[in-house]
Amino acid sequence: MGFREELRVLPGPVDLVGYDTKATPGWDREDKDGGKEALDVLGPEMADLQERLFAHGVEGNDDRRVLVVLQGMDTCGKGGIVKDAAGLMEPQGLHIRSFKKPTEEELSHDFLWRIRKALPGPGMIGVFDRSHYEDVLIGRVHELAPADEIERRYDAINEFEAELVDSGYTLLKVMLHASKERQAERLLERLEDPTKWWKFNPADLDEREYWDDYMSAYEIALERTNTDVAPWFVVPAHRKWYRKLAVAHLLLETLRTIGLDWPTPDYDVEAEKKRLLESSPGLG
Amino acid sequence: MGFREELRVLPGPVDLVGYDTKATPGWDREDKDGGKEALDVLGPEMADLQERLFAHGVEGNDDRRVLVVLQGMDTCGKGGIVKDAAGLMEPQGLHIRSFKKPTEEELSHDFLWRIRKALPGPGMIGVFDRSHYEDVLIGRVHELAPADEIERRYDAINEFEAELVDSGYTLLKVMLHASKERQAERLLERLEDPTKWWKFNPADLDEREYWDDYMSAYEIALERTNTDVAPWFVVPAHRKWYRKLAVAHLLLETLRTIGLDWPTPDYDVEAEKKRLLESSPGLG
Repeated sequence: MGFREELRVLPGPVDLVGYDTKATPGWDREDKDGGKEALDVLGPEMADLQERLFAHGVEGNDDRRVLVVLQGMDTCGKGGIVKDAAGLMEPQGLHIRSFKKPTEEELSHDFLWRIRKALPGPGMIGVFDRSHYEDVLIGRVHELAPADEIERRYDAINEFEAELVDSGYTLLKVMLHASKERQAERLLERLEDPTKWWKFNPADLDEREYWDDYMSAYEIALERTNTDVAPWFVVPAHRKWYRKLAVAHLLLETLRTIGLDWPTPDYDVEAEKKRLLESSPGLG
Repeated sequence: MGFREELRVLPGPVDLVGYDTKATPGWDREDKDGGKEALDVLGPEMADLQERLFAHGVEGNDDRRVLVVLQGMDTCGKGGIVKDAAGLMEPQGLHIRSFKKPTEEELSHDFLWRIRKALPGPGMIGVFDRSHYEDVLIGRVHELAPADEIERRYDAINEFEAELVDSGYTLLKVMLHASKERQAERLLERLEDPTKWWKFNPADLDEREYWDDYMSAYEIALERTNTDVAPWFVVPAHRKWYRKLAVAHLLLETLRTIGLDWPTPDYDVEAEKKRLLESSPGLG
């Protein structure tokens, strides 16, 4: 049984509060070392599939690409996931973007404007560290837009994502889910280590006051944008080794669904070989 | 003795044709395995220095950043260097850009326009896979601009790079240098492996006809833009393990010159710790 099946959010209301963030679904052993080994094992296939995807992008006339959307509360481990993905793949085929507080210019446009500008090109694997979902998460929690505008956005997101899928995108939407208690531990680690002070911001503590509101905003967003073409996956994120393993498997299983062969060259291989050998005496 | 000293291009005329591309300066053993080990050893220091640089960028009020310019003929190994750099560092602090044939829009502006748009932000390590130097390399070889415009560009590049250094950049300009015969071997490998066909383009063979012109254009560019604030380094690129080791060392030695401490937090660490502990019963 794959991680996609295990971690896929079922249609209907979502319960994040009752969720076991320490669980390891899809992995029957509570086995950290085994999980790390399993992660090493999938590296070559991941690299191979990424290279095939990229090769089609280079060759042209192929619009296929992947977009991974990573969401989760502060300290849930998104950064580590991005680093792992980068370690497994060719940087030339990876397109990593993170979305911070919108600028004045971005705020003057529709919320999807900055997202559209940051989309990956053909053949690429895009990874969004936060995304358009912030506009129905922090946007909802802090009432950064009128209620009817927030309402409108769920449908706008579904339309937008369906449009992406129609034009060659494969989407993988992942929420990393850890507990409020776990976040406190991670924040304390940062405050106790001078080499991590720069990662801490007093505003992080202010945001913790809104934890329940965020969970509620996530539950609504997951339910309303959990479509057949762009389903959500929730990854229990308490254990670092598990969340890394789970996201890597989700991505690998997603790449497998694309059915990637090597592109057919648009030149005559034998003729080019002959031309090279003729112009390079002593070769071959 | 460091790689920076060993590989730095000396002032005056540059001889690339008589250059030993199989040499391993700075590394006294012709020892492939030792070279790979040495590369592993420098990883942690590299990651640490990059994180310090990035931390200053996050904290703000610090414009320091690094820009690595990678140049070299097709198949010289630029892609592998970029991949290695990515493997050693946090992707969030790396800003990789590659420059292909300019678009119509790019051609309608000064040659530095697209370069300026692609510069890394504060705290970042930018890596340019090809760069503004293409405009005095392929630009010169194929006479893509009038002769006096090509002439003007050397000074324009020196002014541009001096301006970058003045505003907080540390530049590392590297040419990977392999032989024409080595390129033939690499191209033949691509043509003989179906999983590498996509990397080959018949135009690659056409460009080989201009090899001597390219070497001459490189020699002129290296001589004329080899300034004190932005010197050139030439890395013999015949041996894959050596060129990787050499570029990694050049980058590490360059990061060391910056003198990177950890930034001082702009908040009261003890007060924040107290606030966290008070709001999180059971923690600590």
